[in-house]
Amino acid sequence: MTIKDVAAYCGVSVSTVSRVLNNHPDVSDEVRKKVRKAVTELHYTPNSTARDLARTQADSIGLVVRGISNPFFTPIIRTIEHGCETAGYTMVLHQVGTADDEVTAARELVQSKRLNGVIFLGGRYDYTKREMAGLNVPYVCCTYTNHFGNLDRASYSSVAIDDKREAERAVSFLVSKGHTQIAMLLDNPQDHSISQRRYGGYCKALREAGIAENPKLVLEASDFSFASSYQVVKDFISSKHPAFTAIFAVADTMAIAAIKALYDAGIRVPDDVSVIAIDGIEVSNYLTPSLTTLCQPQERLGEEAVRILVDVMEGRAGNRHIRLETTPRLGGTVRSL
Amino acid sequence: MTIKDVAAYCGVSVSTVSRVLNNHPDVSDEVRKKVRKAVTELHYTPNSTARDLARTQADSIGLVVRGISNPFFTPIIRTIEHGCETAGYTMVLHQVGTADDEVTAARELVQSKRLNGVIFLGGRYDYTKREMAGLNVPYVCCTYTNHFGNLDRASYSSVAIDDKREAERAVSFLVSKGHTQIAMLLDNPQDHSISQRRYGGYCKALREAGIAENPKLVLEASDFSFASSYQVVKDFISSKHPAFTAIFAVADTMAIAAIKALYDAGIRVPDDVSVIAIDGIEVSNYLTPSLTTLCQPQERLGEEAVRILVDVMEGRAGNRHIRLETTPRLGGTVRSL
Repeated sequence: MTIKDVAAYCGVSVSTVSRVLNNHPDVSDEVRKKVRKAVTELHYTPNSTARDLARTQADSIGLVVRGISNPFFTPIIRTIEHGCETAGYTMVLHQVGTADDEVTAARELVQSKRLNGVIFLGGRYDYTKREMAGLNVPYVCCTYTNHFGNLDRASYSSVAIDDKREAERAVSFLVSKGHTQIAMLLDNPQDHSISQRRYGGYCKALREAGIAENPKLVLEASDFSFASSYQVVKDFISSKHPAFTAIFAVADTMAIAAIKALYDAGIRVPDDVSVIAIDGIEVSNYLTPSLTTLCQPQERLGEEAVRILVDVMEGRAGNRHIRLETTPRLGGTVRSL
Repeated sequence: MTIKDVAAYCGVSVSTVSRVLNNHPDVSDEVRKKVRKAVTELHYTPNSTARDLARTQADSIGLVVRGISNPFFTPIIRTIEHGCETAGYTMVLHQVGTADDEVTAARELVQSKRLNGVIFLGGRYDYTKREMAGLNVPYVCCTYTNHFGNLDRASYSSVAIDDKREAERAVSFLVSKGHTQIAMLLDNPQDHSISQRRYGGYCKALREAGIAENPKLVLEASDFSFASSYQVVKDFISSKHPAFTAIFAVADTMAIAAIKALYDAGIRVPDDVSVIAIDGIEVSNYLTPSLTTLCQPQERLGEEAVRILVDVMEGRAGNRHIRLETTPRLGGTVRSL
């Protein structure tokens, strides 16, 4: 079974079969399907020697993820893998523990795996020129901010929502519904990452509404997990605490755990306490009621990250910084007071 | 900055630093932490030439996933990535569309990326000797069954729960609580995958309880997604349908969507209808009430898959077939009649 047999079987040229096998974009969906079907039916395994010469193992993009358990990342990882594949690159997934540093990990990965580029998903935002100097390949920071430490803006790319502004928007929405005693659930207001930026938005919204911030209403979980979010809310409501009518959670997952902790303590959402978050993961739409949240454009974040990186790697364009907007999902977890 | 500087800084030998950088297991956690910290602080980037000679790009394991959006797979993928990394391999993640074939994808991947082994996550179970012959590397099938088509048992490995028996267990639990009108929610009872196997368990449990199967109580979603599960349950309850007091869902995600569809129609769980599933994804424990389900040992499935594959690849052991058990989570979505 050769590529010629497959071409003859499909009634297309050898080069068309080759384009399909190499995932070139310039093939119609119909022909692509026909060729793929024939490859399956004929049990054809492409002779990869020619491809390997043209496309070396070095054509890889590293995806360095901090917080891989976060369901928010799942559709982004899926989209990035698909984008890499379509552009002819292998995606090498590398997860970084919450206590480890993503830049060190990326630097090691680039050298040991000869990556052509890196996408960072999650992590901190206080990168320094010095530490990034060792990276030596184009990289895109995805999902948190467009400004990373003291880096020269032309030296990297980013795709993100404006975390601070979106947090401000979420809290202002609660204020517009009559809430003034608003708790915030986050991991650490000095995490040099999204908690810190979203905390900034929370403070700004309160300030602009003339509401004094109450530090006792800032609930710090030890990480973004369901378990620690559940625990911190449980501890809060079972202790002596200031009155509160709403919670702004820094992530959908944390909001889900907060609602559960409230429920287990006999506190109903939204009847007794309103809850709003940022992220818009799919499952939070299937809560009863659906979670009120600001949905990030997860697929677009992934698509843009790959598109920009490949453009820079292949010399078609320089670094870019893209800001995307969230889309509010009204849900049913916020009520007017 | 050389590896000698790092060694001197830490007060350890050069070979110890090298072992840490190469993720060898024979280093104490304390030393590993100390060296990693020094590498970060000193901004040391290892000279990878020597490593690249010893460890070629070919040291890769392909993870071929069908159904990557399924949150059930997230902890398994995380564990497999970690296991590959620890064993000194790069994990190349490749997702397969629901309409595409994972074996064809794996065969192409092995050739174009020169993989040393493959782990299949999700997919069908009716593999034939002929189609697997082209794969040419060791492979492990993870998470569905221990028997794949007409394959010689010594030619592959598998790690799985007994889907049929676990489904039988879930349905028998409902029967023990007095339920006889039990609906089943799945994607397709002839999917050559977990739906078909779990459907077999459902039928067996009903048969053994002397309950006649009612085909109108078999709800077929178009896939495993939240959206299609929600839709099929919504359509079912808004149409003329047989009475039912319980639903057995083939996956936690489908159960979550079913509960939401019931809730939106004013039907309460477990007051009006009981729901049980198989999987035990983390988020389903944070529903209100928690989902009653049989929890698969997700981390262990991933760990065992990597362990077996690396053993076979490195010639330490032959192929093996491991069967794991679920752990029931009582939750609050099933009530006694």
